[in-house]
Amino acid sequence: MNEFELIDEIVHALGRAAAGTWVRLGPGDDSAVTAVPPGAELVSSIDALVADVHFPGAADPELIGYRAMMVSASDLAAMGAGPGFALVALSLERDDAAWLRGLGRGMGEACIELGLPLVGGNLARGPVTIAVSVHGFAPAGTALRRSGARPGDGVFVTGSLGLAAAAVARGGLDAARPGDLDPLAAGYFRPRARLEAGQRLRGVATSLIDLSDGLLQDLGHVCTASGVGAELVGAAIPVADGVRREHVLGGSDDYELCFTAPAEPPALGIPVTRIGTIVAEPGVRLDGAPASGGYQHFGRG
Amino acid sequence: MNEFELIDEIVHALGRAAAGTWVRLGPGDDSAVTAVPPGAELVSSIDALVADVHFPGAADPELIGYRAMMVSASDLAAMGAGPGFALVALSLERDDAAWLRGLGRGMGEACIELGLPLVGGNLARGPVTIAVSVHGFAPAGTALRRSGARPGDGVFVTGSLGLAAAAVARGGLDAARPGDLDPLAAGYFRPRARLEAGQRLRGVATSLIDLSDGLLQDLGHVCTASGVGAELVGAAIPVADGVRREHVLGGSDDYELCFTAPAEPPALGIPVTRIGTIVAEPGVRLDGAPASGGYQHFGRG
Repeated sequence: MNEFELIDEIVHALGRAAAGTWVRLGPGDDSAVTAVPPGAELVSSIDALVADVHFPGAADPELIGYRAMMVSASDLAAMGAGPGFALVALSLERDDAAWLRGLGRGMGEACIELGLPLVGGNLARGPVTIAVSVHGFAPAGTALRRSGARPGDGVFVTGSLGLAAAAVARGGLDAARPGDLDPLAAGYFRPRARLEAGQRLRGVATSLIDLSDGLLQDLGHVCTASGVGAELVGAAIPVADGVRREHVLGGSDDYELCFTAPAEPPALGIPVTRIGTIVAEPGVRLDGAPASGGYQHFGRG
Repeated sequence: MNEFELIDEIVHALGRAAAGTWVRLGPGDDSAVTAVPPGAELVSSIDALVADVHFPGAADPELIGYRAMMVSASDLAAMGAGPGFALVALSLERDDAAWLRGLGRGMGEACIELGLPLVGGNLARGPVTIAVSVHGFAPAGTALRRSGARPGDGVFVTGSLGLAAAAVARGGLDAARPGDLDPLAAGYFRPRARLEAGQRLRGVATSLIDLSDGLLQDLGHVCTASGVGAELVGAAIPVADGVRREHVLGGSDDYELCFTAPAEPPALGIPVTRIGTIVAEPGVRLDGAPASGGYQHFGRG
């Protein structure tokens, strides 16, 4: 099998995930072509997921593919954008058509769930890495940033937190199989990018971020960007069943949304919990004490 | 130095490369935000460059960064698109601020030359890989594909070919230094994405591709996509000084444009040479004999 046959494998696995209202030209040429809805701005992000750093390299490829796409698309939710399209650059050590087919199936499933067509890609020889570039649409001027939180705003999170971090701490993710995931493994491998909820927060939230590096660190980014601080109430934080609170505060990979708003938000279609209040004094405090933590790819040197 | 300080290093190195007419929000939030010119469609591609596969890992980081951006942007030229914006996902084994600053300087230089703002990025721990997602603009319906070549069209290439492939064959690219490149090393490290020439070919060329995998293979893609063949005249192919013809036919990394057109094209601002003719019979022939070759990341298994 050569490079182009491998690419055909992916395109086949993706099936209808490559089609969409705004897609003018999908995979197969030097670039893809998309139209942009009238009045919309483009919201764009890129992530690279490295085997055995960002996901267990020996895990099921369908689970890896699904998660990679959801994790990347979460950056669109974190801006309040609707789905646009995605591109994937894949590095593989060897040509393994079955693995690639599984990966494509998982990515395609996530793309179809999100309404996010996968319009192009690239395949190269190298250490297993999945780079995903995601693009969404938002009416001009409405994308939600980290920088708008104001003293007095409530701090809110969606869903319940900690399953993915607890799953990583437990280990054994290599053995997980699609269709037979326990709650922890599902929390890790099947996060949902909150695109719907994010869009409903446009014009409502003063700031928005997704929880990828742990609640304390991500909320810290919002506070720094906004020039404010936050007071959190520990007992209010929605910890998932079977999860210790440390997995929520300093853990990672929840991909729920954290936002600030001057009033209770409208219904978002998913659970929302108020966990604290924005204050003028910088820093994040938990039950009155300074708090920090979270994931960094490079330690302090 | 932590992850966020490293990202600050890159943003600093990029300087004004992050600004641009259509940029609404640059690096630092979950996503970047860009506007799209009225009436334009978006042309998008992604590439991943792996150390010691796509570039010599020990080479000067400024040269690596410049080349990575130009190579990626070449996919926009290959569609006849103008510059839009770029995103970069970088994996690094260790936090090396000097290396990263050099890489950022090279990328920034290329972005400024191209008018292609670098609006966002991601930094992760992993084997050294540079994934670049590039986006350009073209008036709706005008992007040039591989599929429009028709029998009777001329086959044209820009520039002169083979320097980069000859440089790889010669070796010693690790020792190259910015500001002191011989012609072969310059051919490898300082390709120019032909964005201007590509745009002038809109409404003129019937098909367009960039030469990244070697003339025979890339022209083969055009022929396959168009359902035609090509007859090339060996003596007409513009081989660069000091380069053997094998480096042109089966070589790689030229990033010049190859296009088909029913008549001589208008001035493109760079040299253009007619090298053959499109015919109805499939396949690429050189001086009458079937010809094939070029670079593939995965061999035939």
